[in-house]
Amino acid sequence: MGGDNAPKMVIAGINRLLERHIDARFLLYGDESALAPLVSKFAKVQDHVEIRHTNVVIANDVKPSSALRNGRDSSMRKAIDAVASGEAQGVVSAGNTGALMGMAKFVLRTLPGIERPAIAGMGPSMRGRFVMLDLGANVECSAQNLVQFAVMGEVFAKRVLRLSRPSVGLLNIGEEHLKGNESVKKAAAILQSSNLGIDFHGFVEGNDILEGTVDVIVIDGFTGNIALKSMEGAARLYARAIREALSSSLIARLGALLAWPALSKVRKRFDPRLYNGAMFLGLNGVCVKSHGSSDAVGFANAVSAAIDLIADGVNDGIKEDFAFIQPTGRNGLQVVTGS
Amino acid sequence: MGGDNAPKMVIAGINRLLERHIDARFLLYGDESALAPLVSKFAKVQDHVEIRHTNVVIANDVKPSSALRNGRDSSMRKAIDAVASGEAQGVVSAGNTGALMGMAKFVLRTLPGIERPAIAGMGPSMRGRFVMLDLGANVECSAQNLVQFAVMGEVFAKRVLRLSRPSVGLLNIGEEHLKGNESVKKAAAILQSSNLGIDFHGFVEGNDILEGTVDVIVIDGFTGNIALKSMEGAARLYARAIREALSSSLIARLGALLAWPALSKVRKRFDPRLYNGAMFLGLNGVCVKSHGSSDAVGFANAVSAAIDLIADGVNDGIKEDFAFIQPTGRNGLQVVTGS
Repeated sequence: MGGDNAPKMVIAGINRLLERHIDARFLLYGDESALAPLVSKFAKVQDHVEIRHTNVVIANDVKPSSALRNGRDSSMRKAIDAVASGEAQGVVSAGNTGALMGMAKFVLRTLPGIERPAIAGMGPSMRGRFVMLDLGANVECSAQNLVQFAVMGEVFAKRVLRLSRPSVGLLNIGEEHLKGNESVKKAAAILQSSNLGIDFHGFVEGNDILEGTVDVIVIDGFTGNIALKSMEGAARLYARAIREALSSSLIARLGALLAWPALSKVRKRFDPRLYNGAMFLGLNGVCVKSHGSSDAVGFANAVSAAIDLIADGVNDGIKEDFAFIQPTGRNGLQVVTGS
Repeated sequence: MGGDNAPKMVIAGINRLLERHIDARFLLYGDESALAPLVSKFAKVQDHVEIRHTNVVIANDVKPSSALRNGRDSSMRKAIDAVASGEAQGVVSAGNTGALMGMAKFVLRTLPGIERPAIAGMGPSMRGRFVMLDLGANVECSAQNLVQFAVMGEVFAKRVLRLSRPSVGLLNIGEEHLKGNESVKKAAAILQSSNLGIDFHGFVEGNDILEGTVDVIVIDGFTGNIALKSMEGAARLYARAIREALSSSLIARLGALLAWPALSKVRKRFDPRLYNGAMFLGLNGVCVKSHGSSDAVGFANAVSAAIDLIADGVNDGIKEDFAFIQPTGRNGLQVVTGS
């Protein structure tokens, strides 16, 4: 029920998703009177969904704490509960991010060894795709948190991006080891000295994200969120300026017409809907947040991200990695070398 | 002597600058044997410069503390000293940023009421131009620091951007007052409740920077630096993808040829050299850092930024504003209403 275009884009999104994942099945939590007519519109969807009625919805301005206290019968909470009970393998929502994270953390709990879950997102770089975390779940992060994000991000890059040896970078304001805040400096020291088996590149700067200098970018949620949205803003400004330029004169329009097939490839490559789906990593269950203003194409991609996390066993990978790691207090994470 | 293309681009930059500012005069600190032949190449420059010989140069990897201790005879330090003594009104360097900030802070001192200087930069937005600070001088910032940056940024926007009532926003990960770290939350509370006379818009997000939602963007130097470089990276990726697309086929190339005049306007509008010049605000003197990889066009713009700061009396404006403000400890800044 969450998101600007819900529930229509959810059903239309599932309809699209089924083209790629023909045997996916869905439990739809929400208002049956709104969902049933939509489902019956899409013949293909009908056999893949089961509506679970509830008319309690978490509004977008509700605080996580209040959602936790008063939202037990909400569509969002019930969908998360279905993951906890094992009835579903993952949950996708376009609703209130804070409430989703708060309830998912409370209901699903974090995986062993993970202090705090992180929000991870993928994007296109000059060399391929990158994954970046945290994108906003944790405003302040300790060095330990960042190291845990690095481990989770590396598992994701191996399993979902299919990279045999992904490189990991810590986002900072310079490449020298003297720069940055205490958390990134300590995290770098841990990642450099540990035998976690991670290909740690060191510090990277803002422009390195899209240059594809590394495959995994690790940063606190405050900076990560602002960096991501700044890049989105830059892409939007640039795209708009080009669009305006190409319609600014008759000759420019003719040129645009000729160049159109080539230019629309660029537009498709950077279509933000392709990368819709903020993945909550570190939870005992798969949870993906779709952008609130998503349409069916975007929502299908958020669901697809959840299916990837499930099918590629990202949580199993994280569990395996953390089974070899034990927290040692002051020095952060360490690989257990004995039994 | 600082920067990849120095000292040639400095002299060539001055040559360009003199087209706009015919009566500007320069003290050139550096190796006379390198500078003199270059100066004699540009007839126009010759009458506007005076070479002050020194062959001590602050290298790019020198720490600020070591530059302070051992760099007294360096070209950078001597140029700053010339501002302190009043012989020059501003200093521009393309060298080591940390050393420049460290020495400028030590030699010039901060303006009354300013705890820490900030690095400010301008850029093009959908609605005009914005100024953003801090871009990397202060990794961690208190609420007080951020409020002081807001005041300085507003003065800059009034005097240099010529806006009668610039709007000021605090960069955050959401617009709700509950979001963000302690510093931004406290700074917002101070800016909202104070009668500083600032048009405080509240929180803005990463994408708002280039959307031009506000004229002045205030943030700590860690996040600000990363946001700025992330946007630069996005613009570069986008520009490259478009360039590649436009040369991907014969028809696309023909289209590009026709659309070229329109597209090159976009390129010119977003040319990063136009906005070269990181301005150190809050010091008792004008100090501008040019990008290290700058060419003559970029360097001329950095010098032009310094001239604007001087001619528009930005430091006088900051002094005036802070004369009405007194620090009150816990609550941050407050306007003195009595005498």
